[in-house]
Amino acid sequence: MKAASLSIALDAMGGDRAPEMVVKGANIARQRFPNVSFLFFGDEQRIAPLLDRYGALRKASEIRHTDRIIAADDKPSTALRAGRGSSMRLAIDAVQSGEAAGIVSAGNTGALMAIAKFVLRTLPGIDRPAIASFFPTLRGESVMLDLGANLSCDAENLVQFAVMGNVFARTVLGTLKPTVGLLNVGSEEVKGHEAVREAAAILKATPLPGSFHGFVEGDDIARGTVDVIVTDGFTGNVALKTLEGTAKLYAEFLRRSFKSSMVASVGYLLARPALNALRVRTDPRRYNGAIFLGLNGVAVKSHGGTDALGFANAIGVAVDMITQKSLEKIREDFASFAAGALSSPQVVAL
Amino acid sequence: MKAASLSIALDAMGGDRAPEMVVKGANIARQRFPNVSFLFFGDEQRIAPLLDRYGALRKASEIRHTDRIIAADDKPSTALRAGRGSSMRLAIDAVQSGEAAGIVSAGNTGALMAIAKFVLRTLPGIDRPAIASFFPTLRGESVMLDLGANLSCDAENLVQFAVMGNVFARTVLGTLKPTVGLLNVGSEEVKGHEAVREAAAILKATPLPGSFHGFVEGDDIARGTVDVIVTDGFTGNVALKTLEGTAKLYAEFLRRSFKSSMVASVGYLLARPALNALRVRTDPRRYNGAIFLGLNGVAVKSHGGTDALGFANAIGVAVDMITQKSLEKIREDFASFAAGALSSPQVVAL
Repeated sequence: MKAASLSIALDAMGGDRAPEMVVKGANIARQRFPNVSFLFFGDEQRIAPLLDRYGALRKASEIRHTDRIIAADDKPSTALRAGRGSSMRLAIDAVQSGEAAGIVSAGNTGALMAIAKFVLRTLPGIDRPAIASFFPTLRGESVMLDLGANLSCDAENLVQFAVMGNVFARTVLGTLKPTVGLLNVGSEEVKGHEAVREAAAILKATPLPGSFHGFVEGDDIARGTVDVIVTDGFTGNVALKTLEGTAKLYAEFLRRSFKSSMVASVGYLLARPALNALRVRTDPRRYNGAIFLGLNGVAVKSHGGTDALGFANAIGVAVDMITQKSLEKIREDFASFAAGALSSPQVVAL
Repeated sequence: MKAASLSIALDAMGGDRAPEMVVKGANIARQRFPNVSFLFFGDEQRIAPLLDRYGALRKASEIRHTDRIIAADDKPSTALRAGRGSSMRLAIDAVQSGEAAGIVSAGNTGALMAIAKFVLRTLPGIDRPAIASFFPTLRGESVMLDLGANLSCDAENLVQFAVMGNVFARTVLGTLKPTVGLLNVGSEEVKGHEAVREAAAILKATPLPGSFHGFVEGDDIARGTVDVIVTDGFTGNVALKTLEGTAKLYAEFLRRSFKSSMVASVGYLLARPALNALRVRTDPRRYNGAIFLGLNGVAVKSHGGTDALGFANAIGVAVDMITQKSLEKIREDFASFAAGALSSPQVVAL
């Protein structure tokens, strides 16, 4: 294996079209990031012939054989207890041991979250890790968290998500001074339940890199009103899936409109290049890669149904997290945030 | 005033462009529903000249003067305490006294909810009224509730929303056997917090007109997987606004695509009739009119920023609710639901 500056562990057996999709995705990522090497965990007999198709990738890769896998319908508790030696577990172990700088899997989300949390542990100051993902908006791209790791959250959790989301926006999205908003049912201070109101009071009183915008509502998500949207895992999961579902509905309505008459079809042909740009801009594969933030290691979850291009983008998120030193920045921000929060009389009063 | 079979009370002073928008909206509704008459509550000096423009509407209308109004930023508690004699309060009082069969207002949502609940009271068996609204999906139209009246809900509340939403789908959307889904973060039975899991167990054990589909996720909303989506007011508010916001984002992306080149503009001209059909299908004014379900009276909230066409549609929702005897059906369903629920051993076991 050629010496490389950065190694990514891949769960080669996770995802609907694994391991083909994983190997092809790694090949695309390899072209984008020539100094990245890969550790493939899974069935060597299936992975080796696939790798042999790509000379440069083969040279930058190593296979660690295991015939154990975690199934898509395994419960997180089962996966945690019985998943030792599985492709997912070994890939995460490689991050813990320092052999790999990050791990990407398209396998069982709950299992990945449970194992990653158990093996990698949370960063100092963080009670609960969160799932974060980014998506296209009218203004560019925004990140939202939590997307399902914590169904109900207190003010403290939401504040921690705000700090972590802020780091994600700076390191992966490249936003210099991200604005942070708390998702609520109205923008007035009196709105919402206690957790969001208390979190808003803490965020207002404590300096963050970037700024705290206050409350945002559902329609602010696609509008891109803020760079970071903070919410509990139940609401965030529903909101992101609602956004994705509505985007699909619109694409389908549009397709039907263009097919509704001959003249409309000709109109479509003429507008196609422009519409393709729109399609590329909103391609879900572009936004593939949910990040488990708050862990002592970089762990990225790819959609299970994605293709090689989508998987390559998930690898890209892991590479950005690592090269931009996201974890170090989260550590630093929590240290200074904790100091600031403790000295603030408004917070003590809560 | 000509004898009419059905009278609607209108808060003539609520909404950004009131009272003009209210009077014009009533005129559009009057053409659609010739046997409806209107009671306008508000400033007679402003309403009368507007009404004089429309002969047929004038004949079917009566003005009840008041110069008191509830402001858009009044707190619900203030509106309840100090709002006596206001256009909104008097319009709701008219429903309570039986003078009007329903009330429509584009004014302050929180105030309308608080006053309507206080004056009209809830129907037997219903602990908390909910806000419901319908929207376009890939399959047709669906209704979602609650949209913000109750930020957190227990299983009992969610079950009651399911029964009320079911009646709404039958009476206003005309769906014979509506399917009902509980919004959750996954479709498996083990997913979600206690309230949704408990509500699912109760709904499974109790016969409803139509059927209980189980859990649905955010992307099922626009897909139209079920006719009725049941959730707490926090999640529902965020989800519906996310859906609306994403629809706007898409329309804007599309507009930009068509303007991006000369050829694309020509394509747009050819496809315009088809795209207009899409625009009409997803026009928010078509879906204007949120219903306060569970009250002993029909109360409909119009968007404050809507125009006459949107307001006419909100009146249409009230008329449908009344002529289809929605409240009687909710009463009946609660009576039979309560009987069924009590006899079910699975529910007793919860």
